[in-house]
Amino acid sequence: MIIVMGLPGAGKSTVLEGLSADIKQLNYGTMMFEIAKEKFGIGDRDNMRKLPVENQKEVQEAVAEKLSREDEKVVLDTHCSVKTSKGYLPGLPFGLLERLSVEGVVLITANPEEIFARRVGDPSRERDEETAESIREHDLMNKAFLASYAAHRGCPAKIIYNSQGKAEEASAELQAILE
Amino acid sequence: MIIVMGLPGAGKSTVLEGLSADIKQLNYGTMMFEIAKEKFGIGDRDNMRKLPVENQKEVQEAVAEKLSREDEKVVLDTHCSVKTSKGYLPGLPFGLLERLSVEGVVLITANPEEIFARRVGDPSRERDEETAESIREHDLMNKAFLASYAAHRGCPAKIIYNSQGKAEEASAELQAILE
Amino acid sequence: MIIVMGLPGAGKSTVLEGLSADIKQLNYGTMMFEIAKEKFGIGDRDNMRKLPVENQKEVQEAVAEKLSREDEKVVLDTHCSVKTSKGYLPGLPFGLLERLSVEGVVLITANPEEIFARRVGDPSRERDEETAESIREHDLMNKAFLASYAAHRGCPAKIIYNSQGKAEEASAELQAILE
Repeated sequence: MIIVMGLPGAGKSTVLEGLSADIKQLNYGTMMFEIAKEKFGIGDRDNMRKLPVENQKEVQEAVAEKLSREDEKVVLDTHCSVKTSKGYLPGLPFGLLERLSVEGVVLITANPEEIFARRVGDPSRERDEETAESIREHDLMNKAFLASYAAHRGCPAKIIYNSQGKAEEASAELQAILE
Repeated sequence: MIIVMGLPGAGKSTVLEGLSADIKQLNYGTMMFEIAKEKFGIGDRDNMRKLPVENQKEVQEAVAEKLSREDEKVVLDTHCSVKTSKGYLPGLPFGLLERLSVEGVVLITANPEEIFARRVGDPSRERDEETAESIREHDLMNKAFLASYAAHRGCPAKIIYNSQGKAEEASAELQAILE
Repeated sequence: MIIVMGLPGAGKSTVLEGLSADIKQLNYGTMMFEIAKEKFGIGDRDNMRKLPVENQKEVQEAVAEKLSREDEKVVLDTHCSVKTSKGYLPGLPFGLLERLSVEGVVLITANPEEIFARRVGDPSRERDEETAESIREHDLMNKAFLASYAAHRGCPAKIIYNSQGKAEEASAELQAILE
């Protein structure tokens, strides 16, 4: 399993859409949302991050159990860390990582100013107020989390820049890792 | 337990003083000092960092044992990492973290230039010679340590900026996490 | 055991040559290469990083076994992370760290622009194409890995800058840690 992460506005979804069709993709957020809807009646995906930390952890546990039963090679699409009111909640805590068979962790990112501009221009999502500076901090913490995850698993940590207008190049870079 | 950390000059003590009186606060350094005084005859708190690393670890062990017996919700005030002659000694090594019940880790920090100015203006403590640049490095390493601690525990990692003249805002931000 | 790490061009070898002769030094890369040559027929040291990740891990395991039998105090010279096509492969994954008795981790680094200039001027090695910017990213990730390793072991993490023309000072700084 290759785990692909990125913060909102980094363009991770676009990069993943560019992968060849034979690669199985699972979205951790979708798996989380389905379980959160079932367990805690969450009706809107953007409200997930407002769930108390304890409940988010319970949902994580249920998803880990599901993922540990996957046996073909998959790309798991998730967050490196989720920005909550209590801080950056790691997407891959060691307790979860231990239960997955991980061959690589990938962070899709971009220049903080570009991410900021993309977020401002995207009316489809409810977002917290952020500045380029706070995005820069989140990006730095994501890189630190990425190193922790890789050190824990002994797997490589790849950073892919999805620069404006270069999503195809970013997809190709990700595709190369999967081969 | 919420663990609040910060490097000297970040104004952590001031921020903690602004918390409401009903929150129980423990100071890891004080607990360490009491045990170090007892075990190794350390007479001055600023000399703690000059203790050999092995002895610092022994003191850490004794404090962990004490803390694991706490059962009400507390704020633990400590260092993210201590700058010693042998490098940055992590304040929360995994061996210690495993023994504590941690709900969140918080780093109080500020702009390195502001921290530098505060240290220069504080005659009450013996300090090592530092520059804004070396404070910037320590701050970066603290953020990396913070991510490791949070990844290990699966708890959120919060960074609070205590900017000049804004300690009340920083206290309010911390108070919000505790509720 | 003190583990000394640095990325290509940081001048780690020069700094290690400046240590006093009574300090036993082992090179992890050499130990890796000897085993890789034996197991996978690798004939050139710079080709090591082109080995599939799975094989690199197998070689790491064999070296760990050898090192765990060392009983005198040694300096282990290694990479903090190796840049492979699949990302930054951590030099000290937790599974390896757990098997070693580590008293400190040290990162030898330098200004990214200086490292870039040194690499361009060194015709003796086959190197990947890099820019000062990509070296800056590698250096940041190395610092994050360093923090993870230190947090895991509870040992200090030291960063030593080997600035142009100051290798002797860097050696002296490292020597001081070993005493």
